[in-house]
Amino acid sequence: MSRTPVTPGFMTEAIDPVELLKALVACPSVTPEEGGAQRLLGETLRGLGFEVEQLVSGEEPHGPVHNLLATRGSGGPHFAYAGHTDVVPPGKGWASDPFVAEVQGDLLYGRGAVDMKGSIAAFVAAVARLPELGGTLSFIITGDEEGPAVHGTRALMTRMEERSLHPDMILVGEPTSQNRLGDTIKIGRRGSVNMWIDIIGKQAHVAYPHEGDNPITRLFRIGTRLHELDLDDGDEWFQPSNLEVVTVDVGNPASNVIPGEAHLRLNVRFNVHHTGDELVEKVRAIVHEEAPGAQFKAMVSGEAFLTEPGPLSDLVSASIQQVTGLTPELSTGGGTSDARFLHILCPIVEFGLLNATMHKLDEAVALSDVRALTDIYEGVLRRALG
Amino acid sequence: MSRTPVTPGFMTEAIDPVELLKALVACPSVTPEEGGAQRLLGETLRGLGFEVEQLVSGEEPHGPVHNLLATRGSGGPHFAYAGHTDVVPPGKGWASDPFVAEVQGDLLYGRGAVDMKGSIAAFVAAVARLPELGGTLSFIITGDEEGPAVHGTRALMTRMEERSLHPDMILVGEPTSQNRLGDTIKIGRRGSVNMWIDIIGKQAHVAYPHEGDNPITRLFRIGTRLHELDLDDGDEWFQPSNLEVVTVDVGNPASNVIPGEAHLRLNVRFNVHHTGDELVEKVRAIVHEEAPGAQFKAMVSGEAFLTEPGPLSDLVSASIQQVTGLTPELSTGGGTSDARFLHILCPIVEFGLLNATMHKLDEAVALSDVRALTDIYEGVLRRALG
Ligand SMILES: [Zn+2]
Ligand SMILES: [Zn+2]
Repeated sequence: MSRTPVTPGFMTEAIDPVELLKALVACPSVTPEEGGAQRLLGETLRGLGFEVEQLVSGEEPHGPVHNLLATRGSGGPHFAYAGHTDVVPPGKGWASDPFVAEVQGDLLYGRGAVDMKGSIAAFVAAVARLPELGGTLSFIITGDEEGPAVHGTRALMTRMEERSLHPDMILVGEPTSQNRLGDTIKIGRRGSVNMWIDIIGKQAHVAYPHEGDNPITRLFRIGTRLHELDLDDGDEWFQPSNLEVVTVDVGNPASNVIPGEAHLRLNVRFNVHHTGDELVEKVRAIVHEEAPGAQFKAMVSGEAFLTEPGPLSDLVSASIQQVTGLTPELSTGGGTSDARFLHILCPIVEFGLLNATMHKLDEAVALSDVRALTDIYEGVLRRALG
Repeated sequence: MSRTPVTPGFMTEAIDPVELLKALVACPSVTPEEGGAQRLLGETLRGLGFEVEQLVSGEEPHGPVHNLLATRGSGGPHFAYAGHTDVVPPGKGWASDPFVAEVQGDLLYGRGAVDMKGSIAAFVAAVARLPELGGTLSFIITGDEEGPAVHGTRALMTRMEERSLHPDMILVGEPTSQNRLGDTIKIGRRGSVNMWIDIIGKQAHVAYPHEGDNPITRLFRIGTRLHELDLDDGDEWFQPSNLEVVTVDVGNPASNVIPGEAHLRLNVRFNVHHTGDELVEKVRAIVHEEAPGAQFKAMVSGEAFLTEPGPLSDLVSASIQQVTGLTPELSTGGGTSDARFLHILCPIVEFGLLNATMHKLDEAVALSDVRALTDIYEGVLRRALG
């Protein structure tokens, strides 16, 4: 594969975030493929004086995954930037090659433009402007955020523990902006848990219902009780926890047959007033009462967490305000990110580009946003380590 | 196709019901195929002095269907025997050819042995024993009972109306016996209605539930209200009406997506305290309240009916008792038959062979049952027209 890597000399030249973004987009790093993105980032950071450790974790089918841990400086405070080089599959129907950055006017098209190669490029370019920062600066970069995330950030956290790397603040570069760059930063996330319920009944002819046990009757009772669960009303920082039944399926083709099985799957997005396990037990109890023979399975994919507004969110907000004039909303909405793992280490906030086109066809970022984000990240670094 | 038809001379020789049954089994009359069965029956009845009208109704794909209307005698009372020469497909796995009557000991194997060529053979043989009956005797025989039944009995009823044929009593020869020949006759049937509900919601990511409208939530509300419907408690002759949701389907493969549509199908088996249309309106009202945008479809496949115990059931019961010693139960249970159409004409009861093997592999009838049924039908004819 041929590409044009950016090869900055050690603290000798500025990095154009747009050029670095173009080089990153050219790396087809669909999870779990490395695609050249981790190597390019490692080379670039070495050029900026970082000590770079590149780790390969896991095996087929969810690996091997390429991850990167880079540090510069020593002592406190320790500021870390966290992100991912992997991207979701492009899908069919792009107007241009998703792995060739295509600029039209102020827009740059390419898979990963906003989620989140644009953020990485901006942060690296900001760092390149600031060779004389104090304390410790780290990059925690996984190649497995969009996939099962089993060989990514968790492997990096194990390695950080081994190396006694303990950041005091983490900024995650996920695309958090809604309508204008800087309108939203995330100070927490809801947790998420999936549950699968397989209700076993007894098949019979509809003319002889006493010979059967319709699992759909039990399914409706379970569903009604699930909807009656009043989880919480939310609070200052979180919207109310929410349970959604995402599918119910029987697949009975016959109008005259009571079916033998019924299946239900649900997802709960929950705030810090719950843990995943507590919710699993709540639902399990209902299922056990209404369908004692049912099979029940659950998977907690992340717990809820919150970084109460404080020094970290203040310095990010101040930098945003200085560059854009906006006062960002402190949000806990939306989906999950690797912050679900990292939050146990120290205060953590997430801030990055507009998320309107993330994971979509023709994902695109405004070049002016990439440059403004670079300025904002520069302000964050000055405030944290200046 | 070669077969050995029974060619009785006009009122000159007895008909062996077992031989006639073998000849009928040899006709592969899977709905809507005539298979030679209607022709054989027509010839036989002409030989017994009947005026036979053979009608062909309907077109592809559910036709053409061959039906038969045969009458003998004049004036009242008018007694009619109703039945069908068509059979359900044999399916794979028979021990012998389903269209060659195979006798082993007292059992005769063949598709249609009990449902209901055995009954037709017995009734014809009984008629052959009684050349001197009074009143009018008719055969109402369709070739489309096991199929959609659109070009069968209904076409025959239209023709009967044109010819001013008005029976006073109808005996349907469906297999009604449960464990022993004569243990059950049917004096009514429940009605049946199918309904299809397609609930339209709005798809969204589970993290943004306010942007969606989960159709499963509406589905659960509808399902709960359907189960709370207290239709009736049944009565002396009918079990309670019963609604069964037979399938619910969404087919959403994604745990993080609120689906856009949900589908529900239900069947109601109802007694004479309801009409199909009234039940449709009850359900439609619930659907309209809980899911105003839902698509709703219904099909009434038969209304409930009852012939109150009286002269007709008495004479059938008396004949059964004389031959078998059993007092038959008067039932309204089980599935539908063409009695659902014919009941509007006059009192109607159903009585025939054991239904244990109907529609199954290796359908079989006891030769002794065919002979005993012939005796019972003979008693019915003597009592009705003797
Ligand atoms: Zn991302
Ligand atoms: Zn039948």
